[in-house]
Amino acid sequence: MISEKGILLIISGPSGAGKGTVVSELKKHGDYALSISATTRQPRINEQDGIHYFFKTKECFEKMIENKELLEYACFCGNYYGTPASYVYEQIEKNKTVILEIEVQGALQVKESYPEAILVFLTPPSMEELERRLVSRATETPDKIKLRLGRAKEEFDIIDKYDYIVINDSVKRAVDDINCIVKSEKMKAERNINLKELFYNLCNNV
Amino acid sequence: MISEKGILLIISGPSGAGKGTVVSELKKHGDYALSISATTRQPRINEQDGIHYFFKTKECFEKMIENKELLEYACFCGNYYGTPASYVYEQIEKNKTVILEIEVQGALQVKESYPEAILVFLTPPSMEELERRLVSRATETPDKIKLRLGRAKEEFDIIDKYDYIVINDSVKRAVDDINCIVKSEKMKAERNINLKELFYNLCNNV
Repeated sequence: MISEKGILLIISGPSGAGKGTVVSELKKHGDYALSISATTRQPRINEQDGIHYFFKTKECFEKMIENKELLEYACFCGNYYGTPASYVYEQIEKNKTVILEIEVQGALQVKESYPEAILVFLTPPSMEELERRLVSRATETPDKIKLRLGRAKEEFDIIDKYDYIVINDSVKRAVDDINCIVKSEKMKAERNINLKELFYNLCNNV
Repeated sequence: MISEKGILLIISGPSGAGKGTVVSELKKHGDYALSISATTRQPRINEQDGIHYFFKTKECFEKMIENKELLEYACFCGNYYGTPASYVYEQIEKNKTVILEIEVQGALQVKESYPEAILVFLTPPSMEELERRLVSRATETPDKIKLRLGRAKEEFDIIDKYDYIVINDSVKRAVDDINCIVKSEKMKAERNINLKELFYNLCNNV
């Protein structure tokens, strides 16, 4: 009876937060699907269309932008990357939790096109650990460290636009936390107004 | 690092939803505290002030209303009943989840005085089961059934003002669901903005 529509779950966080590991654990569950990006870059060996990416020509991608078929997009190194809405919506209709691992600016773009999206910010276990990760690579110049700090600062700057903060002190616990967020989101009253209708029908039949 | 302030958790639901059983299971956990009502009615044998109720004189209760010291109150059979804010706030400061089992009108009053309160609506497992419970007592007159139906209808009518709907198909599952809601609420970004400050301090020290 409880909500049978899936959820779009966006996961962001500073580099070193462990997003990749957490996401790959989550997708072992049947209820999760990974969002597939569209891109104009050339496929690499072993990359398959519709599995790793939706490979598109520049014209096709620009038509998708024009038709608002993307939840977000950006341009890196002369290539477009974006999230096709149709694939996400299809999975949501199938009651899947669609995971989109994306940086903060993209995440906010998605939230604008699809306000029901749930934004999760994954952080390293402690500020000490984050500091260690930010300055640890001895080979890096002070300039690079500064750049990385600036980027992390920019990310933390908008955590209040996120819905949830998950601390990745152990992968298992972070995965449990995210599962709990999804479960709890599905119990939100606004996702279950159908219960009210069912009840009214019942009252009319008693 | 994650939120160390407690939560006010309001549990409502139609008669027969199993609120009492679920609440008594929840309060076995150390993290939960039960809200204690204030009342002007006489204490019964074995009822202790500050444990079962805060027993007040009429004058004292009306002064509490005047001073806005109650999160909600109502009058039944010539006696006042209400929820003293101070006890709830004390427990929240101690990082407790304060449970308040209350009917829908009271719940909405509390949400108005304390918007951070989380409203959970507990329902019986299915509409069929609710129907069975609503009409089952053979001794009841059609008028009484009608009254009970009307009351349940009134309750369902405002479920969209609730935050979560929990289906009580098994007490264990309902308790797990509520624990999950509390855990997930504590991960809400708005409850953890202190993380941003910690991060800024770190950046300034690197």
